[in-house]
Amino acid sequence: MITQRSREQQLKVGKFDLGMSARWLESRVRHTARRGALSPRESALAERFKLLKREAGSHSPSAPTLARMIPELRLRVDACFLSNPYATDLFLDYLHREVIRTGKLRRLLEFYPSQNRVIADKLSGAIGVPAEYLFVGNGAVEIIQAILHRFTGAKILVNLPTFSAYHEFVRSDTQVLYNVLPRENDFRFDPKPYLERVRREKPDTVVLINPNNPDGGYIPYATLVHLLEELRHVPNVILDESFIHFACEGDDYAYRSLSGEVDRFPNLMLVKSMSKDFGVAGIRAGYAVMAPQRVQSLLNNGYLWNSSGLAEYFFDLYSRPDFLIEYERKRVHYIRHSRRFFKALSLMPGLHAYPTCANFVLIELRNEMTAEDLVCRLLVRRGIYTRTCDDKKGLEPGKFIRVASRCRSENRFVLRAFRDIMR
Amino acid sequence: MITQRSREQQLKVGKFDLGMSARWLESRVRHTARRGALSPRESALAERFKLLKREAGSHSPSAPTLARMIPELRLRVDACFLSNPYATDLFLDYLHREVIRTGKLRRLLEFYPSQNRVIADKLSGAIGVPAEYLFVGNGAVEIIQAILHRFTGAKILVNLPTFSAYHEFVRSDTQVLYNVLPRENDFRFDPKPYLERVRREKPDTVVLINPNNPDGGYIPYATLVHLLEELRHVPNVILDESFIHFACEGDDYAYRSLSGEVDRFPNLMLVKSMSKDFGVAGIRAGYAVMAPQRVQSLLNNGYLWNSSGLAEYFFDLYSRPDFLIEYERKRVHYIRHSRRFFKALSLMPGLHAYPTCANFVLIELRNEMTAEDLVCRLLVRRGIYTRTCDDKKGLEPGKFIRVASRCRSENRFVLRAFRDIMR
Repeated sequence: MITQRSREQQLKVGKFDLGMSARWLESRVRHTARRGALSPRESALAERFKLLKREAGSHSPSAPTLARMIPELRLRVDACFLSNPYATDLFLDYLHREVIRTGKLRRLLEFYPSQNRVIADKLSGAIGVPAEYLFVGNGAVEIIQAILHRFTGAKILVNLPTFSAYHEFVRSDTQVLYNVLPRENDFRFDPKPYLERVRREKPDTVVLINPNNPDGGYIPYATLVHLLEELRHVPNVILDESFIHFACEGDDYAYRSLSGEVDRFPNLMLVKSMSKDFGVAGIRAGYAVMAPQRVQSLLNNGYLWNSSGLAEYFFDLYSRPDFLIEYERKRVHYIRHSRRFFKALSLMPGLHAYPTCANFVLIELRNEMTAEDLVCRLLVRRGIYTRTCDDKKGLEPGKFIRVASRCRSENRFVLRAFRDIMR
Repeated sequence: MITQRSREQQLKVGKFDLGMSARWLESRVRHTARRGALSPRESALAERFKLLKREAGSHSPSAPTLARMIPELRLRVDACFLSNPYATDLFLDYLHREVIRTGKLRRLLEFYPSQNRVIADKLSGAIGVPAEYLFVGNGAVEIIQAILHRFTGAKILVNLPTFSAYHEFVRSDTQVLYNVLPRENDFRFDPKPYLERVRREKPDTVVLINPNNPDGGYIPYATLVHLLEELRHVPNVILDESFIHFACEGDDYAYRSLSGEVDRFPNLMLVKSMSKDFGVAGIRAGYAVMAPQRVQSLLNNGYLWNSSGLAEYFFDLYSRPDFLIEYERKRVHYIRHSRRFFKALSLMPGLHAYPTCANFVLIELRNEMTAEDLVCRLLVRRGIYTRTCDDKKGLEPGKFIRVASRCRSENRFVLRAFRDIMR
């Protein structure tokens, strides 16, 4: 009888032994097959996934859609999805305790939610700006669409890479100019050439996403304020701070939003999704801070009941100190272990992880593997859902993937999978 | 000791007896005071309500907003709110059984819902039109706004009275023409003068609401089809069927939607709220049926994730036969007792109840009372929330209120209150 210990010795010896054991050889072949080409079944799943992804356009299908359309996939980690899962726990905890167990859910689902202005009033204290500066949105995408259709004119300047809604959803008579961030400099934003470009091309709208999606690049607060001073002549400055809760400049994990600067810069429109930091993408909640006459102009044209009852409940929570104190703990905890996760990924061979101040990391493959290969392999073999950036303007197709940080055990699982595959 | 029976005899006698009992007299005085002027406390509450109503613009504040802003009010019936409460019961029943108790709520709230097209696919079977004809909306108001801003040109023709979004949310360069429905003929829609007006004024968009809000007037299916034939030269015909589930032409409670006619009439855009018939205003769900190139034109400009996770779950239910069979029972039950409610109201002295095929009734006061008086009295004395139509274009201010049908016991409560007040 061969004990575990003796088998290990046998294997160790076997590496240098032409007469190595048949069982060890067989296991190596199987192992190589695992790391190598996909099996016919795996390939078939990968093809179905690619088809679904192509049909979803420039946004990835959600994990529930994926699970429904390809039920054979065993999804274990949704690292495509950019949200703090600990914050989702917190929201669900409040919802169960205060709404479901108390029988108050009916009220949220049966009746019309409050009108936009009433919800803005509630938000005002939490954000620290007067309600007339606030426009409440059914997710940030609704706000982006509203701004692009109502305020943007003939020319918009968008950095690349970017969140695609900023060039996809412009009016058909708006020309999109792209400012390509330098890959060789980790896609860092440089104000000098940017301002030169603005002066030269005279766009009526410029878009800054901070931290930027999909690379996580961050523009410090002081730089941004200086930039806004220089951009005073541009009619519309959109600043998307949807990932700002994950960015910290100092050691104290504090983040610095520019929402308080809108009265100084009347051309500034600050867009904020609540899906990422609060982990509630399914309830569709976002807001914008902009000059009161802009808010009024949007409200004059609709957006009356664009929040749902649950979104209103979320905004109620967001204005409560007890919720915010607990949320702050979740936020810091998430940032801490996300940083460790990104660090560990950056040390993997065969890839370059771009520096990030968001809750995701942009990875460039620097081996023979394509992004689609890696994403399919992670998905069909490990049940890890990540995202190729093949559809992202400004990124070389085939080489980039974006990986989100999830909860700690999920991140560990993702790291193990990367280690196995990238070896 | 005076028994109940002897007291009744005493009172009966008392009416014709100058020496009537002191206790009876006292009770009559109190009763008259109850029916008469509001007490200072009641007046103060009424003033706060009027202020809130004025601040809410041309839409009434929701009952939860009312309860929050004036907590001293004891709200018992929300007869301002146009929805089938039995359908709300049904939805909540499914939600608790299938989502909350099974722990699936997290999935609906954490993740992005499916994209617009995916939800349209699900809806397609239930509505009986191909998915490419379907645009899914965050409530009907979002769809109305989208149509008015994307397709309507220089001139829109709107019947009066109407749902105010159709004139409020037009673009600033759109001229609104009003076709006033004749009050003396119960606001009945007459195709002949309407078509003459259309030929003369050449609007690019016409709006028909069927049944109409706020009067509940109904245009039969055959009349509508004939009308659509005559309106083929108009670029945009908006048909709002948000209340169609409450309208029946025959004795079998079947309703007849024109959603299947959009391929015959490419200028037709059918708008449908799900808030009224399914009693789920708080989840914001609606859809439109329109030519595929129109749907595409809207989707090219956004509306990607405009449904919430709960709205998607509702649309899932809506496409399931088991749910629809149960819903059908709730619908018929609600229509049956709503009709009895409207009939009873129409027999009250001092008012005229307009004939309705919706789940509400427009009431014109034909006594010395003003609509605001009646609404305030119902609210502060009985906790019944109804709506004046003082803000409705095309209705003489001060004389009209709209009363929704609720569940049977609530309707009985409303009837008793009307009987007491209108006596």
